[in-house]
Amino acid sequence: MAILKMSTYPFQSTRLTMAEDDLQSTNLLLQAWYIRQEVAGSYNYLHLWIRTLEKVKAIIKSKLEAFWAHEIRMTSIGAREHREQTGRDKTVDVLFKLEFSDGRYHFLNPTHEEVVTPIMKEFIKSYKDLPTSVFQIQTKFRNEKRAKSWILRGREFLMKDMYSFHATLADLDSYYTQAIEVYHQIFGALGIGEDTYLTYASGGTFSKYSHEFQTLTPLGEDVIYVDKEKKIALNKEIIESPEVKEEFKDYHFEEARASEVGNIFKLATKFSVPFEVKYADKEGNLQEVYMGCYGIGVSRTMGIIAEKLKDEKGLVRPEHIAPYDYYIVPIGNETMTEKADYLAHVLEKKGYAVMVDDRAVSPGVKMRDSELFGIPQRIVISQKSLEAGGYEYQKRTSEEKKIVQEGEL
Amino acid sequence: MAILKMSTYPFQSTRLTMAEDDLQSTNLLLQAWYIRQEVAGSYNYLHLWIRTLEKVKAIIKSKLEAFWAHEIRMTSIGAREHREQTGRDKTVDVLFKLEFSDGRYHFLNPTHEEVVTPIMKEFIKSYKDLPTSVFQIQTKFRNEKRAKSWILRGREFLMKDMYSFHATLADLDSYYTQAIEVYHQIFGALGIGEDTYLTYASGGTFSKYSHEFQTLTPLGEDVIYVDKEKKIALNKEIIESPEVKEEFKDYHFEEARASEVGNIFKLATKFSVPFEVKYADKEGNLQEVYMGCYGIGVSRTMGIIAEKLKDEKGLVRPEHIAPYDYYIVPIGNETMTEKADYLAHVLEKKGYAVMVDDRAVSPGVKMRDSELFGIPQRIVISQKSLEAGGYEYQKRTSEEKKIVQEGEL
Repeated sequence: MAILKMSTYPFQSTRLTMAEDDLQSTNLLLQAWYIRQEVAGSYNYLHLWIRTLEKVKAIIKSKLEAFWAHEIRMTSIGAREHREQTGRDKTVDVLFKLEFSDGRYHFLNPTHEEVVTPIMKEFIKSYKDLPTSVFQIQTKFRNEKRAKSWILRGREFLMKDMYSFHATLADLDSYYTQAIEVYHQIFGALGIGEDTYLTYASGGTFSKYSHEFQTLTPLGEDVIYVDKEKKIALNKEIIESPEVKEEFKDYHFEEARASEVGNIFKLATKFSVPFEVKYADKEGNLQEVYMGCYGIGVSRTMGIIAEKLKDEKGLVRPEHIAPYDYYIVPIGNETMTEKADYLAHVLEKKGYAVMVDDRAVSPGVKMRDSELFGIPQRIVISQKSLEAGGYEYQKRTSEEKKIVQEGEL
Repeated sequence: MAILKMSTYPFQSTRLTMAEDDLQSTNLLLQAWYIRQEVAGSYNYLHLWIRTLEKVKAIIKSKLEAFWAHEIRMTSIGAREHREQTGRDKTVDVLFKLEFSDGRYHFLNPTHEEVVTPIMKEFIKSYKDLPTSVFQIQTKFRNEKRAKSWILRGREFLMKDMYSFHATLADLDSYYTQAIEVYHQIFGALGIGEDTYLTYASGGTFSKYSHEFQTLTPLGEDVIYVDKEKKIALNKEIIESPEVKEEFKDYHFEEARASEVGNIFKLATKFSVPFEVKYADKEGNLQEVYMGCYGIGVSRTMGIIAEKLKDEKGLVRPEHIAPYDYYIVPIGNETMTEKADYLAHVLEKKGYAVMVDDRAVSPGVKMRDSELFGIPQRIVISQKSLEAGGYEYQKRTSEEKKIVQEGEL
C-alpha cells in the first residue's frame, strides 16, 4: 500500500508526557505511534515502524548479498545440547530458559553461534567449501536484570548477524577487512555514515582488537575517543593500555558520546573447536575452520537514528528509510481533498509512498503531525497555494517553502 | 542477489534416509537444504526456504493491504498482566513461561489477542475510528506436549494473524464475508486455490460457525467433507449435528483428507469486554467493540504446498513462490559455463532469479539437484544443445524438452 489515507489510519498521534529518564526520541516514537511497549525492553512495532524496518532490512540485505553472504533465518529456540557443547549454558547470564512440557528445557537464543556452527558443520567438508558466509535478521532475547532505555539493549530486539567460515586465519583477516568496508556502506545508506566510526575494542586470543561501530550522538551511552580526521575511534576499555597508546600515538583523539550500532569479532576457532568443525585440506589432512561474526543492532540502530535526527518539532526520517516519502495536506473544501487524492496517485505511479491527511481536523493538527511523523517532504494543497500557482512544498529538514507544479515533484 | 552460483553456495544437496513416520516432503526439504531442525517442532530456514518465505509474505501482504489492513509486528514476549485480564494465563495449556531475572514472569505469545486488544483500545474512541484492522506475520510459540511432523503445528512457527474491529456485529459480518474472498485470492496466488476449501467448523456465542481453510492432500491430518461442485466443506466436528444436516441437506459431501492452512473466527466481544474496549456512538453512548480474527499458518502452508506438489523426483515449487525462476546447467567445457553466466545476467536483467550450477560435478548430479530443488524452469547448455540450435528448456512439471533461443525465455 503506497497510499495511506489518514482518515482510515488507526494510529493517530497522541500527546504524552515524558518520564524524566526517557530519551526524547522514545517519547516522539510513542507520540507518533511508531511503537508501543509490551513489557520493559520489548516493543510492539506499529505501521510506520514496520515500514521503516522493511527499508532498513532491504538496505542491509542488498549490501550483504553483494558481499556473497547467503540469507538464512535461525530459530528463536536454541537446543540446550548445543549450548552445553560450548559451556555457554552456564557462562551466559542473560539466557531465558524454556521449560518444555515434556520435562526437558532449552533456551531462547541471545546470539546464534551455537545454532549456526552445527548447521555449517554438516556442509563444510573440504577446502573447496570455504570461504562461505551466512546472515540473518532475526529476533534476539536477553534476560536483562534491568531493561534499559528502549533504543539500548532490550529483552527482545532485532539483530542482523553474519557468520563467516574460512580455511585460514589469513583468509578470515582479509574477509574481516572487507566486512568493515561493507559496514561503512550500510551505515552510509542508512543516513548515519558520516558520524559512524570504526572503533577499536579489546580483542581475543587470535586478534589484538575487535571492532565496534559507534555513532556520535549527544545522549549516547558510551564514551569513545575519536580522531575525526583519520575517521577512527578507540573505546574506553582500551584507551589506557600502554600498547594501544604506542600504536595510536600519531592520532589526535577527542572524547565524544556515542551509541554502538554494530560490532564485529574474529571468533577464529572458538566455536569450531567445541563443535569439531574441520575441513580436509589439499593434502587430505583435517584442519580447523576459522570463523568471524558480524553484528548490527537493527532495532537499536533504528532507535539511534531517531534520537540523532529528531528536532524540536518531532522525528526527522532520512529519505532512504522514511516510512512514506510524501505527506500531502489538503486544506479547505472537498475539492482540495480530491486534488490531494489525485496527486497521491500520480506520485504513487512514480514509485513514491504517500500519506494523505484527509482527516476532519484543523490544518494546524495536520501540519504538526506531518512534522511529528518526520515524513521527508510535505505538500500543502489549499486555495492559497493554488492562487500562488500550484502546491506548497517543504522539506522536513528545511524552513524554506516553495510553490511547485505537479511535474516538478 | 538474483543470481546464485552453485559453486559458491554452502547448502548443497544431501542424501538422507527417512524415518518411517516422516512426510516425504520433510525429507525432500532436508535433502535440498531448505530447512534444518533445531529442536523437535522448531526449524532453521536456510536460503531457499527464506526466499520462498519472502515471496509468500509479499503475496499475503499485498492482498491484505488492498483490503485496508495495516501491517504491524507485535512482540514475542506477552505481558502476564494482559493474559490475567482474560484468564488465559491459566486456561491456555501451551504457554511457554518466561522467568525474568527481576523475579517476575511473562509468556511467549502463542496468539496475540491479548497484545493487539490493549494496543487498539488506546486508539479506538469514537464510531469514527471504526472499522479498522491490523495484521502481522510473526513467530508464534506453543509448548506442545509432543511436536508433530514439521508441517503440522510445531513449537515455533510463523503465522499471519489479522484482527478487525467493528462498531456492530453486522459490520463484523460484512467484513468477515469479504475476508473469505480475500483468503481465496491469497490461496489462489499461492498456487493451491483450486484444492483449498472454505470449511465450516463450530462457532461460538455470536456466530453459528467459524471457518477453516482446508487444502486437500492425501496425507492431510484432517478428515473433511467436501462438496467439490459447490466449493465448500464441513469439518468432522460438525458433520453429525442435526442442525448442520438440515442446513446442508442439498449438498453432496464426500470424505477427503486435508490440511488446515487458515482459520477465521468472529471473536465478537470476547476480548473487548475484559479489556473494556468501548467507543462512543453518534449519541455519545459507550458501546462495546466487535472483533474478528483471521489466521493463516504461514510456515505450515509452505510445508503443505511442498507436500502436495512434490513428485518422485523431488520438490515442485509453484512459479509465484519458487526461490529461483531458472536453473541453468552448463555441461562440458569452460565455454558452456561462460554461456551460462551470460544467460543468467540476461535473465536477471529481465527480472528473473537464476541459479547457475557451475559446480565441478557430473551432469547427472546437476540434473538430479535441479529436480530435487524444484526450480520451475531448467535450461541445459551443452555442445549438443548448441548444435541443435540453442538451449535445452524444460519445465519442472513437464517431461517435454525443447530447444529455445535466448529471446524466447
